[in-house]
Amino acid sequence: MFGLIGKMRAQPGKRDELIAILLASTDAMPGCLSYIVAEDPSDADVIWITEAWVDEASHKASLSLPAVQEAIGRARPLIAGFDSSTPTVPVGGVGLANPATP
Amino acid sequence: MFGLIGKMRAQPGKRDELIAILLASTDAMPGCLSYIVAEDPSDADVIWITEAWVDEASHKASLSLPAVQEAIGRARPLIAGFDSSTPTVPVGGVGLANPATP
Repeated sequence: MFGLIGKMRAQPGKRDELIAILLASTDAMPGCLSYIVAEDPSDADVIWITEAWVDEASHKASLSLPAVQEAIGRARPLIAGFDSSTPTVPVGGVGLANPATP
Repeated sequence: MFGLIGKMRAQPGKRDELIAILLASTDAMPGCLSYIVAEDPSDADVIWITEAWVDEASHKASLSLPAVQEAIGRARPLIAGFDSSTPTVPVGGVGLANPATP
């Protein structure tokens, strides 16, 4: 498995709008086992995204999906930057969905 | 929802053993929506644990479950410490399980 823990920073005041875009584009991503979007309670502009994928190739392929490409285009002006992005190797647990198929 | 992103450090060489204990005790935790255990590919002693719960009370209550108490007892000697533990407020996404009921 391949995982990512990302700390994304929205433009000031744009977190809710950015989260709505992120959540609208997560359906039917082949190989996606988990993609959870969370607010940081201590910083009003920070979004945490924790992801698990069948493998790194599925994650990379998702970035080319038309729905994801469209979301990236709408999200980009609302993103101030990434404070951190940490790759991981998930090994198990609760809440690993069955991967969507193409 | 209530979330946690934890970076746990195992005693040197004890990561696999610690992960096995963590994974064995995650069944049937009421209110648990996601609990994913991952290795850090860049540090052989680091474990990332990303969690989502119905609320903070369910998370706290889980620590008193007999199976979790027993696991904590076995895990403690294998844990060097926590590099970080970040609370979050999950708002949605893929892979949020139906919460187990008591």
